[in-house]
Parts: sequence; C-alpha cells; structure tokens
Amino acid sequence: MPNPFMKKAIELAVENVRTGRGGPFAAVVVKDGRILAEGTNRVTSTNDPTAHAEMVAIREACRTVGHFQLTGCEIYTTCEPCPMCLGAIYWARLAEVFYASTGKDAAAAGFDDSFIYEQFEQPISGRKIPMIQLMREEALQAFRAWEQKADKIPY
Amino acid sequence: MPNPFMKKAIELAVENVRTGRGGPFAAVVVKDGRILAEGTNRVTSTNDPTAHAEMVAIREACRTVGHFQLTGCEIYTTCEPCPMCLGAIYWARLAEVFYASTGKDAAAAGFDDSFIYEQFEQPISGRKIPMIQLMREEALQAFRAWEQKADKIPY
Repeated sequence: MPNPFMKKAIELAVENVRTGRGGPFAAVVVKDGRILAEGTNRVTSTNDPTAHAEMVAIREACRTVGHFQLTGCEIYTTCEPCPMCLGAIYWARLAEVFYASTGKDAAAAGFDDSFIYEQFEQPISGRKIPMIQLMREEALQAFRAWEQKADKIPY
Repeated sequence: MPNPFMKKAIELAVENVRTGRGGPFAAVVVKDGRILAEGTNRVTSTNDPTAHAEMVAIREACRTVGHFQLTGCEIYTTCEPCPMCLGAIYWARLAEVFYASTGKDAAAAGFDDSFIYEQFEQPISGRKIPMIQLMREEALQAFRAWEQKADKIPY
C-alpha cells in the first residue's frame, strides 16, 4: 500500500518538472492525517535559491496554522532534505520526516548537496566560502537590546 | 575603522528589536561595494521559521538581481549563520561571509543552534526528529522526468 501523502508528494514533483516550475522535488506537511500545505521546488521560476520544496511547504503550513512552529506535524518529502531544509525542519519543530529518494539519488540526477554537508564538518577557517569575523563587540549591542526588551516574543 | 556594511547590519538588528519585528539579527548582501539588499529576522512577525536575517537578505538580493545565484556577492551578517542559513549561503553561491557575533554569543542570548549543528553529525537513524524512508522506487520517477526533460533549467 503506498502512503497517500508520499504518493501525493511524488505526483507534485513529477508535475513540477512537467510544468517547468522548478526541480524534481515536492513535499507536503501533514497534521492529524490531513494535508496542511504542499510545496514544490521553485528555485528557477521564482529566482529564489531558498525555494526548495520543504521550505515552500513549511512556510505555507505556517501561514495556514498562523504560527512559526509546526509542533505535531509531519513532513513528507520526495527526497532526503538538504542541509538548508533540514535546518528549517528543526527550527519549525516538525515531529517527523518521511523521505523517499536519498541524497545520492539526487546527486545522480545532478543535485549534489553532499558538498554542502561536507562543509559543515569543516571548521569555519577551512570552508570553501571564506568566513571572516569582524566587529563582534559592536554586534553584541543587538543581543543586549534583546535581553532588555520586556515585551519580546522568544522563539 | 568600523566596516560600513557590518555597521549598517548592526544598526538594522538593534532597530529590529526596538520595533518588535523579530529577533536581534540582521544581514546585508553587498556587490561591488554597494548594498544590494537588507534583511532582518522576521520569524515571529511573519509566522515564518525560515525568515532569518540571512534568508530574507538573500531572497531580496536575488529579487534585485533577477537570478537565483549571487555569484560575486558578499553577505554581512550580525551573527554566525545557523545551519539553515549556511546551507542557503552555499546554494546562493555567495563569495564571502562576514559575521560579527558567534553562535555561542547567540546561545547566551537564548538562540541556540548548536543543537541543530550537532544533529547534522548524527547518522539519519540517530537524529532527534525521526527520519523514515519510504517509496524510494516510486519517487525516482521525478528524477527520470527531470533527466528526460529537454528544456530544463539546471541549478
């Protein structure tokens, strides 16, 4: 028996390729057995490198529930999440991730995020995109302002 | 001499706290010595867990240049990027990252992403948010459709 949510995500991914809207990826966010939001990859059609299927689905699901966390929700994604999307999944506090194809399958089709995963294992000084620290003392002002703010909304 | 781009980012971060629009973070994307786009954290005010300062700035910069890559651009961010934002920085092909405060400084102010970085070091089976694979064979359809598409836009 195919899982109906993953089946839906796969259909959306195939359709996304056919319509030329973006890469071969889709995701759905589910709560209590109901689809809250769908997302497909829209990187090239919206000129947005962050518009991966999982990101689009998470943002849409948050709009639907009116909150910046998706506690108790699951995400069904046609492919193992990339580092950006995995980060977003943790920030959104999703309860479970169901994925179908692997990062290796994606790499074989030309979408290789293993390079990015490898970068995370490097110390800051050893990364391909140079990361340079400056003005730390001055930047701490922002955290001090946050600590002093009485009516802040933590997250 | 303070760096003018980081100075601007720090001002934006402090202002973001004052106006209550989100967390104490801001970023600017710079090309050829000119600010292309600004971003501040908008997680709580827009109910979007992906609306970190770097993500907002990258998305806005891409809108400005009309492309999904930011080759030759730098990002100035008030704090060391979280895993989601670091992933986005790699996907956007930024040339350089300048950051001010560290992940530890952010953690001391209540924003702890070290937990997420630690999750990346775990194998899929050992992560806090369970990741379950299903329907891989069916999902490969999407990659086959992609491979067969003549007029695709790779990224």
